[in-house]
Amino acid sequence: MEKKYDELLELLDNKKIIELRQKLINMNTADIAEFLETVPSNEIVVVFRMLPKELAAGAFSYMDVEEQEKVINLITDREISYILDELFVDDVVDMLEELPANVVKRVMKNASSETRDLINQFLKYPENSAGSIMTAEFIDLKKYMNVMQAFDRIRRTGKGKETIYTSYVVNENRQLEGVVNVKELLLSDYETKISDIMDTRVISVMTTDDQEQVSNMFAKYDLLAVPVVDTENRLVGIITVDDIIDVIEKETTEDFEKMAAMTPSERPYIRTGVFTLAKNRVFWLLILMISGTLAGSILLHYENILAAAPLLVAMVPMLTDTGGNAGSQSSSLIIRAMAVGDIKTRDILKVFWKEIRVSIIVGIVLAVANYMRIIILYPDSEMMALAVSISLVATIMMAKIIGGTLPMLVRIIKLDPAIVSGPLITTIVDIGALLVYFAIARAILGL
Amino acid sequence: MEKKYDELLELLDNKKIIELRQKLINMNTADIAEFLETVPSNEIVVVFRMLPKELAAGAFSYMDVEEQEKVINLITDREISYILDELFVDDVVDMLEELPANVVKRVMKNASSETRDLINQFLKYPENSAGSIMTAEFIDLKKYMNVMQAFDRIRRTGKGKETIYTSYVVNENRQLEGVVNVKELLLSDYETKISDIMDTRVISVMTTDDQEQVSNMFAKYDLLAVPVVDTENRLVGIITVDDIIDVIEKETTEDFEKMAAMTPSERPYIRTGVFTLAKNRVFWLLILMISGTLAGSILLHYENILAAAPLLVAMVPMLTDTGGNAGSQSSSLIIRAMAVGDIKTRDILKVFWKEIRVSIIVGIVLAVANYMRIIILYPDSEMMALAVSISLVATIMMAKIIGGTLPMLVRIIKLDPAIVSGPLITTIVDIGALLVYFAIARAILGL
Repeated sequence: MEKKYDELLELLDNKKIIELRQKLINMNTADIAEFLETVPSNEIVVVFRMLPKELAAGAFSYMDVEEQEKVINLITDREISYILDELFVDDVVDMLEELPANVVKRVMKNASSETRDLINQFLKYPENSAGSIMTAEFIDLKKYMNVMQAFDRIRRTGKGKETIYTSYVVNENRQLEGVVNVKELLLSDYETKISDIMDTRVISVMTTDDQEQVSNMFAKYDLLAVPVVDTENRLVGIITVDDIIDVIEKETTEDFEKMAAMTPSERPYIRTGVFTLAKNRVFWLLILMISGTLAGSILLHYENILAAAPLLVAMVPMLTDTGGNAGSQSSSLIIRAMAVGDIKTRDILKVFWKEIRVSIIVGIVLAVANYMRIIILYPDSEMMALAVSISLVATIMMAKIIGGTLPMLVRIIKLDPAIVSGPLITTIVDIGALLVYFAIARAILGL
Repeated sequence: MEKKYDELLELLDNKKIIELRQKLINMNTADIAEFLETVPSNEIVVVFRMLPKELAAGAFSYMDVEEQEKVINLITDREISYILDELFVDDVVDMLEELPANVVKRVMKNASSETRDLINQFLKYPENSAGSIMTAEFIDLKKYMNVMQAFDRIRRTGKGKETIYTSYVVNENRQLEGVVNVKELLLSDYETKISDIMDTRVISVMTTDDQEQVSNMFAKYDLLAVPVVDTENRLVGIITVDDIIDVIEKETTEDFEKMAAMTPSERPYIRTGVFTLAKNRVFWLLILMISGTLAGSILLHYENILAAAPLLVAMVPMLTDTGGNAGSQSSSLIIRAMAVGDIKTRDILKVFWKEIRVSIIVGIVLAVANYMRIIILYPDSEMMALAVSISLVATIMMAKIIGGTLPMLVRIIKLDPAIVSGPLITTIVDIGALLVYFAIARAILGL
């Protein structure tokens, strides 16, 4: 896969284990994971076992689930235990959600009872909720501590935590009272009380909040971590920015896929099988193909008009394509603006009104261009040019209004706006455009 | 804009300044900025001046450029100076890039000469390069220092730095030698030498690297900050994760816009004017409309065939729409995979081969469904059904091969693959689909 690992693979082939090990130890864990993915299946464990334990666990956490599965199937129970101890619970949960049941069983068997309880609790949160992506490894302080005691606690308990840069202040009921950054601790005297430097304007999320909402908060407030609380404001976990970047990437890719009329896939393109790719694409194509035949029936229905004025047929692709394009522009903008939180459903009337005005401007520009094109190419077709141009304005207005508001209506009924794909808009607008076109053509040309 | 600020606005209206000030002081800076954007223009400065200086500068950094401009035009030179001192250079540069020339002049006049030099240097980096988004406020250490000295330096110089959690070790030529996280400092003895705990496997970027590349590195390595070096490995700045989240959001929105055949806009939808929106959309619609007329000419050219077999016309929208949809699916997947770094241009043959196989499966499924639909709806049309179904397979194959490889070819010639929009693919595939359709129909139906 990656040329840059050829040298390492050669060392492995030639059994130059000590030299290989030395090189691996000096690499970044994410790169070691990438290298392991290029190693032939039967040798992964060889390489995995030559790494120092901590590095092996670190690399494991960066591997894709299918590679993780291979490794789990080849290592001992004891090694599994060790890895589970080193991993953050949220990473373990991510992995378990995608592993086959028998592998999950083996993993759970080797987890410490404390980890197992945590995992079970995390697995209960709905998919894509803040609860499902949080981690339980954070540092908590009490407000009566002073800075010295806080540092002590960080030094003592910080090693396995996902971040040590933000600590959370909780009361005896584990309710969240404030946050303190290491920055403030470092810049304060050792005797200062935590209650004096903690920030009580805590930005927190609920376990049930959607992960997209959470990632928009990171973007807005420039956060490194956010605390997750339950309905009684008890601190149950934190979400760190590195996990949020993965969430943003995954959510965006899903939006891209839905907006191009596909079922979202779990894996990167290059590692998805041909049958899965075909399966993800065929459903919507089939639905849209069948709806697309409606447009065909309209053409067939006006057969005699088309026979009387063949030039009318020639304008159909231009008209329907432009309608589809104009509608997709609007739907893409609106879906994206809703995803990043720039537009809320209550803005629907504003969007409606804006799209009307934009579509009038765009429609008139295109209609004028089109009118001139037709009378230049086909002189003496002024009435035809007029009919086509009026249809064009009407089509663009319809397309932009549907494109702008349909995703919002979909969100209002609690579905994902991204299912309003460009292709779906195109299919809907095609039908409307043809009906309008023939009505106008008949009226103007007297057919 | 936001209902939640109604209470604050009422306080302002009723001139309850002290109460308003008290409430603002307890708010997050990002929220204060959001509130300021809802305040009527003539009162922004009133509110701005009631804030403690530091909070005012903080809120300023979160405001949109147009609001920043309003504020700058209303405050004194002295106040500008103060804000410039408080802001990070990268934020100042972002702002200056969008302000009108006369305002830029006034801002530069009030910057300290040191800041002015930095700004000028930063403005020289190409747009969207690592250099253009980095900040010069970082903590540098020497490797002969010990942990105690490092903490001293962090305490002394840390206040105005964008992050104090990662420090960079440089030699006497300012070349980057390693990184140390506060985490390691906290977990080490005071006498430990920096050279013993620094990580020399530094992941760094060049000033000229593209920001998209940089953001993919953050995603891959879970970074909080990355050092930026010049061609001689001298440390010139750092990029922090909060800025990267903004980059990711902006780049993705641009991709969405390009892929829906629009010129990317600088501002959120809700704040973009109707004329700008229309201008951003009309260019590609016009280009595509004119190309779309080619498909119309093909229909006109085969006028006599259509007259002989009217059912053929009825299949045109289904055929061209399906082709466009199938092609957009592939182009969306490939453009996204390239954006997140999952696919490189050298994978083009793999993609080509994968798309061929996927398109055969998808094509056959749709062709069979379509064949059955036609012979059920129009009995005795087996040959017609056959012609349409074969055309469908050919169209889908063509669409997916073009959709999969065209974005990669565009990248190979150094353009942005996202310009291969769904609408563009649709227009190209329309023409090919019609040519294939008529060729096959003539051959099979003997027209």
